[in-house]
Formats: sequence, C-alpha cells, structure tokens
Amino acid sequence: MLLNVGTFIRSATRFSPFIIPHSSPSSPSSFCFSFSPKQTVSFTLQSSQMASFTTLSQSPPKPLFRQLFEKESSTYTYLLADCSHPDKPALLIDPVDRTVDRDLNLVKELGLKLIYAMNTHVHADHVTGTGLIKGKVPGVKSVISKASGSKADVFVEPGDKISFGDLFLEVRATPGHTMGCVTYVTGDGPDQPQPRMAFTGDALLIRGCGRTDFQGGSSQQLYKSVHSQIFTLPKETLLYPAHDYKGFSVTTVGEEMLYNPRLTKDEETFKNIMENLNLAYPKMIDVAVPANMVCGLQDLEPKAN
Amino acid sequence: MLLNVGTFIRSATRFSPFIIPHSSPSSPSSFCFSFSPKQTVSFTLQSSQMASFTTLSQSPPKPLFRQLFEKESSTYTYLLADCSHPDKPALLIDPVDRTVDRDLNLVKELGLKLIYAMNTHVHADHVTGTGLIKGKVPGVKSVISKASGSKADVFVEPGDKISFGDLFLEVRATPGHTMGCVTYVTGDGPDQPQPRMAFTGDALLIRGCGRTDFQGGSSQQLYKSVHSQIFTLPKETLLYPAHDYKGFSVTTVGEEMLYNPRLTKDEETFKNIMENLNLAYPKMIDVAVPANMVCGLQDLEPKAN
Repeated sequence: MLLNVGTFIRSATRFSPFIIPHSSPSSPSSFCFSFSPKQTVSFTLQSSQMASFTTLSQSPPKPLFRQLFEKESSTYTYLLADCSHPDKPALLIDPVDRTVDRDLNLVKELGLKLIYAMNTHVHADHVTGTGLIKGKVPGVKSVISKASGSKADVFVEPGDKISFGDLFLEVRATPGHTMGCVTYVTGDGPDQPQPRMAFTGDALLIRGCGRTDFQGGSSQQLYKSVHSQIFTLPKETLLYPAHDYKGFSVTTVGEEMLYNPRLTKDEETFKNIMENLNLAYPKMIDVAVPANMVCGLQDLEPKAN
Repeated sequence: MLLNVGTFIRSATRFSPFIIPHSSPSSPSSFCFSFSPKQTVSFTLQSSQMASFTTLSQSPPKPLFRQLFEKESSTYTYLLADCSHPDKPALLIDPVDRTVDRDLNLVKELGLKLIYAMNTHVHADHVTGTGLIKGKVPGVKSVISKASGSKADVFVEPGDKISFGDLFLEVRATPGHTMGCVTYVTGDGPDQPQPRMAFTGDALLIRGCGRTDFQGGSSQQLYKSVHSQIFTLPKETLLYPAHDYKGFSVTTVGEEMLYNPRLTKDEETFKNIMENLNLAYPKMIDVAVPANMVCGLQDLEPKAN
C-alpha cells in the first residue's frame, strides 16, 4: 500500500538529470540546498580495476535530517524532510508532548511542511506529541501501526510505504517490546538515501533493547523481530532508536550484530536475560499508555473554563 | 602548518580512482565501508542546462562521524575518523572525563586508531577527558590552541591543518567565550566532506553562544569571531557545538545567520545582551579550569597507595 494522504502525492520520478535544483541558498526555505541530488555518472568497478562507463545516474538523495532529544524521558524525536521537493514535505517520528513547541518551531524555521506525526509504538514512558501537533498544525496526520490498537488518522501495516516528497519510509513489523511496534526504514533503491536509515523505536536500542514485560511484550517475539526485520538490513544501515540513556546517538546493523549484549546471544539466552532484568514498574505507564492510545490526546477538545 | 605528529603522515593523494576500497563488510573493522569514496564522473552543469563531460573525480568523502552526549554538563563529544585510510585514524573533540571509557570502547569496537584528543577551549563546566585518554591509549596526542595558555602535546594556531588520514580539520580562532577558543572546520575542497562541518565549541551554540564574563572573555571579540570566522563559511556548513541544553544536535550557518537570537543583532545590542544575562557563577569553574589547564590531568602520574 502506498499512502497518499491529503494533498500529498508521491511523484513517479526524481529530477531530470540536467535540471539544476530550484532552490537558492539565500532564503530561509533553502536550508536543504546542499542536500539536493548531485548529478553524477556512475562507473561500475571491474575486478580488473578498470572502469567501464555504464549509465547516467544520480548520487543518493540526502533527506534533511534532525535528531532531537527530550531529556526527561531520554527520548529521541526525528525530523525528516525531502527538501528536493517543492513542498519540502516533512515528518516527525516519536515526538514528545513537552517538546512539541520546540519541534514545530524548528519545522517552521526550516521552511518545511509537516505532513505526518508518527509513532513507532504506544510509549509507556512519555506522552506522545502527535495529538498536540494535530491541534497546532492543521492538516498533519497522526500515524501508528494498526497492530497497536490505538487511535490515529493513518494506520500502517507491514510493507506499507509512507511517502514524503520523492522519499519514502517502509514499515516493518517489530513487535516484542509492545505488540504493535514497528520500525520505519528509508526506502531501498538508487533514488533513496544511502546508507539506509532505520527508526527502530524500542525494538532495538544502541547495545540494548526495550523491555518485554508490559503491553503485550514477548521476548521470543522481540528476538524474532530484530533478527528477521532489522539484522537482515544492509550492515551499514544507520539505526536510530527512540531512546538512549548513555549519550549515544546512532549505531549500525553491523555494530549491533557484533556488539549488542542481548541480541547477539541465542534465543534461549536472550529470553533468560529479559526475564531477569528486575526492572521497576514503569513510573509513567499508567498516565502515558492511556494517553498514547489516543495519540496523546488525539483530536483534543478545548478545555471548558 | 601541516601537523604530522608521531607516526601519522598525511598522504598527498586519495585513492587511485580505480582501486576498490580495501575493506570488506564482514569484519569489525569494516563499519566505515559505506563511507568510502564512490567513484564518479562529474558533470559541469551549464546555464543552458546541458551537461558537458569534464573530468574524472570522486564524490566527497564521508568521515565516520559520531555525536556523543554527556548528560551532567550537556556536553557534546565528537568522534571523527577516516575509514578510507588503512589505519582508520580517528580523533575526539571535547571528550569529557566521566565518559572517557564509553568513548574509548566505541573507538575500539569500530576498529579505529585514535590519534588526537582535542579541545576547542579550556572548559569551565566539566573536566576534559584528554589527560585520561592519554593514559589509556598510548600514542594519543592532546591538542589545544596555543592561545589557551594550557598544557598539551600539540598547540594549534589559526590556519593550522590537523590531518587524520586523507581528511583534515582547519583551525579557526574564535575567541570571546575564552581567550583561546578555536573552531575546527573540516577541510575545503572536493576531496573533503561536503557540506563542511564546523565544531564551534562554545563560540556558537544552537540559537545561542557561550558566556563572555570569565576566562578572558569579551563580547566584542566573540561577536567579531563568529561573524568573521563562522558566518563566512558556506551557509550549508553543519555546525556542531560543544553543548546543547534544549535537545538540538546540529544547526547550519544559514540557520544561525537568520535565527540566532543574539548574533543576528548588531554588535552594540549583542554587547548589551551579553552584559545583562545575569548568569550564576559557574559552579564547576574552580575545579574544571585548573584541571583543564593541564588537559584534565595531562600526563597523570599513577597515585601512590
């Protein structure tokens, strides 16, 4: 399924290879100038170390990308936009209620058009900002997995593509931390960012993973999710989690396959590790989960005074 | 001045355009595989929008890059490496003492060879990790500006180039927060990263700047530094500060020239703003500055028990 929500339509082609990108570096709407595709001619490198001229192509596009941190819950929010597209369509992944104004101000300053406010899952440690964002930016659609069972404008399923301009995210089901967890992965192909970027939510954290003892969690399912849906991505794929507690910002599939202290183990060992974490009851869960089931107060009604 | 410290020598050329990068994606030392230069043929785009075949060239190299956060002092440490070089030489900018083990473990896991532990300035809010790193990794050289007046292995001056593999950082003097502040900027030219990356220390923060009331600080000097040394870089240059307190991770020259609430003002207004910040006395300054004047216990002697 290709999502075409509201006025947003995914165009079939990227730039003509000989059209100079339209933006100029002197206006506020031009922050993405350096991210526009660069026209190149690619060589195929032969084993004889001789090059043969093959075909006209473009170097991979670079989305505008910002990683934003919310200190209380150690949550990462991600801003992605296709600045090569005239509308500069943008999306936010895992926004937090208390940092919505910061994020929306940045979107405005960068001259982007926010079209989606997305969640990787129903969070238990903070209230999502998607409901607030919908109230502040008309036209923005909240997005979450169908399997989450929560309320949103758009429900995604495995294999769906979420397009923003000429870029898209692919939806992969990665349940186990919660029953509805998904990982959003940038598209595959020469017209999509290289290396690929995966937003793993709490399914895979840097040298860790989310707990599996609440919200329909299952260590067996999480193990299978990570090994079948994340570790099968190219090794250089950049992995961006929903949280980090040690100050790391990014990892790669290759790194986690070698160094993740839990998920490099066999399934039985992993299950034992997860069963013996002895974690405290999540302090925000009773507030956050009910709120996040309606995308953090979806379609918030103004309070009567 | 081109720094050639220890066994490190900057080679005059990059890859032969027909040599396939040596690394393979299956070993721990291959995390940078995707960052190796891609062989391309560049076009010069004509105003008539016709392309003319000009010359063999390479797309800009991408250094391995990691942004690391220390929560207590809200400090960013940066890891940069040239993974296209056989030695995978790396440097750390503004490491913090309490996160040295985290940073060195990452360097090890990524198969990098740390050659420099650098500071943008003598910090007043945390103890630098450079001294500790020297004790833990033989051969690493500590680097700081000559103007800082502090102890280190290598003193840099404006215009110096600090090479790591085939990449280099350019040193720009940006005093005003302290008398010895420098900004490290990735090199200019087709064989260096695009867009350029500037590590601004406390001279320029995202939508802010460092205070100017201690350590030989001067608002007049800071204003001049930012406008002459940072705002003159290409607008798409990525700016990475030594701190952020609001969860931002990066900005650009173009953004700060439009939206920095202090440095977009005229010099007199900026001076007034800085004089009226009414900030508290820096709580760590009496511990941190003396330690950092010797690079956080430079050449630390083992404690007698």
